[in-house]
Amino acid sequence: MTDESAGRAPLPATATTVVVGAGYAGLTAAVDLHDDGVDVVVLEAADRVGGRVLSERLDHVSGLVIDHGGQWVGPTQTRLLAAAQRFGVSTFPTYNTGDHLELWTDGVCRPFRNAGPADGPGVAAYEAATEQIDALAATIDPDHPGATASIADWDSQTVQTYLDREVSDGDARTRLALAVQGVWTVEPRDISLFHFLFYVASAGGFDQLMETEGCAQERRFDAGAQAIPQAMAAYLGDRVHTDAAVHRITVLDDGGVLVDTARGQVRARRVVVAAAPGAAVRIQFTPPLPQARNRWMERSPMGDVAKIHTVYDTPFWRSVGLSGEATVYGDHSVGVVFDNSPEDGRLGVLVSFVYADRQQRWARLPDAQRRADVLATLTALFGDQAGAPLHYTEKNWPDDPWAHGGYAANPAPGVWLEHAETGWRTACGPLHWAGTETSPVWNGYIDGAIASGRRAAAEILAALR
Amino acid sequence: MTDESAGRAPLPATATTVVVGAGYAGLTAAVDLHDDGVDVVVLEAADRVGGRVLSERLDHVSGLVIDHGGQWVGPTQTRLLAAAQRFGVSTFPTYNTGDHLELWTDGVCRPFRNAGPADGPGVAAYEAATEQIDALAATIDPDHPGATASIADWDSQTVQTYLDREVSDGDARTRLALAVQGVWTVEPRDISLFHFLFYVASAGGFDQLMETEGCAQERRFDAGAQAIPQAMAAYLGDRVHTDAAVHRITVLDDGGVLVDTARGQVRARRVVVAAAPGAAVRIQFTPPLPQARNRWMERSPMGDVAKIHTVYDTPFWRSVGLSGEATVYGDHSVGVVFDNSPEDGRLGVLVSFVYADRQQRWARLPDAQRRADVLATLTALFGDQAGAPLHYTEKNWPDDPWAHGGYAANPAPGVWLEHAETGWRTACGPLHWAGTETSPVWNGYIDGAIASGRRAAAEILAALR
Repeated sequence: MTDESAGRAPLPATATTVVVGAGYAGLTAAVDLHDDGVDVVVLEAADRVGGRVLSERLDHVSGLVIDHGGQWVGPTQTRLLAAAQRFGVSTFPTYNTGDHLELWTDGVCRPFRNAGPADGPGVAAYEAATEQIDALAATIDPDHPGATASIADWDSQTVQTYLDREVSDGDARTRLALAVQGVWTVEPRDISLFHFLFYVASAGGFDQLMETEGCAQERRFDAGAQAIPQAMAAYLGDRVHTDAAVHRITVLDDGGVLVDTARGQVRARRVVVAAAPGAAVRIQFTPPLPQARNRWMERSPMGDVAKIHTVYDTPFWRSVGLSGEATVYGDHSVGVVFDNSPEDGRLGVLVSFVYADRQQRWARLPDAQRRADVLATLTALFGDQAGAPLHYTEKNWPDDPWAHGGYAANPAPGVWLEHAETGWRTACGPLHWAGTETSPVWNGYIDGAIASGRRAAAEILAALR
Repeated sequence: MTDESAGRAPLPATATTVVVGAGYAGLTAAVDLHDDGVDVVVLEAADRVGGRVLSERLDHVSGLVIDHGGQWVGPTQTRLLAAAQRFGVSTFPTYNTGDHLELWTDGVCRPFRNAGPADGPGVAAYEAATEQIDALAATIDPDHPGATASIADWDSQTVQTYLDREVSDGDARTRLALAVQGVWTVEPRDISLFHFLFYVASAGGFDQLMETEGCAQERRFDAGAQAIPQAMAAYLGDRVHTDAAVHRITVLDDGGVLVDTARGQVRARRVVVAAAPGAAVRIQFTPPLPQARNRWMERSPMGDVAKIHTVYDTPFWRSVGLSGEATVYGDHSVGVVFDNSPEDGRLGVLVSFVYADRQQRWARLPDAQRRADVLATLTALFGDQAGAPLHYTEKNWPDDPWAHGGYAANPAPGVWLEHAETGWRTACGPLHWAGTETSPVWNGYIDGAIASGRRAAAEILAALR
């Protein structure tokens, strides 16, 4: 959602701190600084706040709010829950009653709960593998990833290599591949075993990433997940400037920083760069950033994901005992489906996720074929009714001009080992780094973004004292 | 070398073709287009032409010319030899008489020729491994990398994984790691087996990459390797503009292209982007580039290399039967040394290469320690005389504000498989791609840059007809 009422005021010539990026990370940093009395200005490239969180109100569909980006909150995501409480945004449980469906590679559709159908191919081996993954991840202290005993070994091999070697059951490997696609929005070949395990550790275990009840997908926001950054921006008032893309950041000899946008220049004592790595790396830094930080950002590409919402006059799947959640293997583009209906169930909403290799193929199709492709999968899962939605809408994150993808940036193999020490999030003089990718907790999630904003604000408060 | 006499003329408002980047690739494209009567303008971000090729004349050291960047030409690099001939730049053989030295991990120094000392640890296993590598690479058609039978397997594992699995001899693995560092300027964990094999295939075999006589390091340029791009720029005259960094490229609805620099805007019918991927990805493209091309560039980070030249009053190592070439293992920062003296031997010059992990550590040292570190290794190899050069100079490519590293950009694991088809070098409407990374021959080398410029020019000539 965009807010027409604010954002285009002239930029101030100076501010104690400039925050680059008005996603959860940047706005959290700005709120913390503002709370502590620090003069702060937020510069956002897009015409809205929220970053990779984007809610849309469909006025022609009963005012339904859908979330094109990050949308869930889990019980251990205490920072996000606290932000929701502070800014008055209520939550409700993700619909999680009835059977999930699994459409397997052979076209067989099986109901399930938990990790997979009891009679599903490779489920037992999959569960054994996730136990091993949790055991390996438990050796990582997410606050000190570089100190992990096996980091050199684990960051030198892809997850695909690990799966090929350790998981002999091909069906279990297929399941784990969808888990990687669904959580990291990449293929197992694209990330290292270390990044995979770090991410698991930062979330508190594999199930936390995968499950709904008690886990990352437990609850949703009545007003959409963007309501919180919008409320943060309202709290900050005219300190938040949209349509203000930063293209150059210059650290002066006197320690001050010049931040350049097409709408003018702001001079600051400290800067928080809270844009995603793939956006931040496109800023021209003078003098050039330290090699470790530059390489960290250059080598952390965003994942590939699209979210497709289909709206129906009722959540009709519920009446036949289905939860609306589904996992899809084989030739389908859709990988995962969730019930994304409003809490009162006045409408039925399914959200379909398309990831990684499948996203790349799907995104190249013409509009009508993309839609037909998604609806064919939904029909295979939920029957003909699913193929005739009242409303169909897509958000293809790799096309987003500022985020360049989603959900998060994933360091390539070797990057953690080579650059964790100083490249991950260490301040470079007056330049501080935020964004969920810099978080040791819930890395890649909204909660991690908030944690990173709090840390960056604390760094600056300490520096200004 | 910079050329003060030209480059800062006002930019023209229009040109049939704009070339972004005045390295070998861009200048070759511009020369070909100009030869064919096409109106062309070259926009270069730096204050000089040459890109990753940079020669310096040391007026205070007898006018010695040293090459901070690409410097060699081999007999199968026919495009570069032809360019040297056309632009009147003479070559001479790399000094290659006498014994090379190998400083092994245990501190033992052994003379050798060819792949390694006959009594060197792991040499036989190393040679067996390179034969296997050549056999695998022979299955790749560099013009059609995506058609490789094993691409999915090979692009899903790192070179480190391959070495750990296939090369049981630890000493041979150590040798192969230095080969990867020396040729790709990364660690074996950073690139996929497929990229490694593709690169070998594009060069015509592993020995072509590694050796001097008959191979990539066979000859050097009397006036330095930058003399050719300088002559190309002189030929193009006021069509070449330095200090003209392109920050935005906009494709208009009518098919025209606007190219924006801080010095003004040029409107063109066609554009060749001949900057390195890591520089090109920092340009803001409107509308956004196709996902495949964008991801290709985002996920192709530059390697890490520094070149250090030390100058002596004579090439004293020659008189004791040494070639000046050395390979260094263990705790030293320097990985490889070559004799880089002028042909007449009036001075002695050694060039030391520092790569990858070792470059990252070395570059963080204070100035005096970096120098002491390099000189200690040279002393261990060539005696005390090597520790007291007349002149010492470094070029640390990761700090270069435009190249961001060297020698070349290396696609991360998964990138070839996912994006070779349309992301590697396929034109995006009026936007054409050049640069050595887009070349099927001598990818990563000057010769590949020239090949890419010729291809891009041919694409444009075909499009304009």
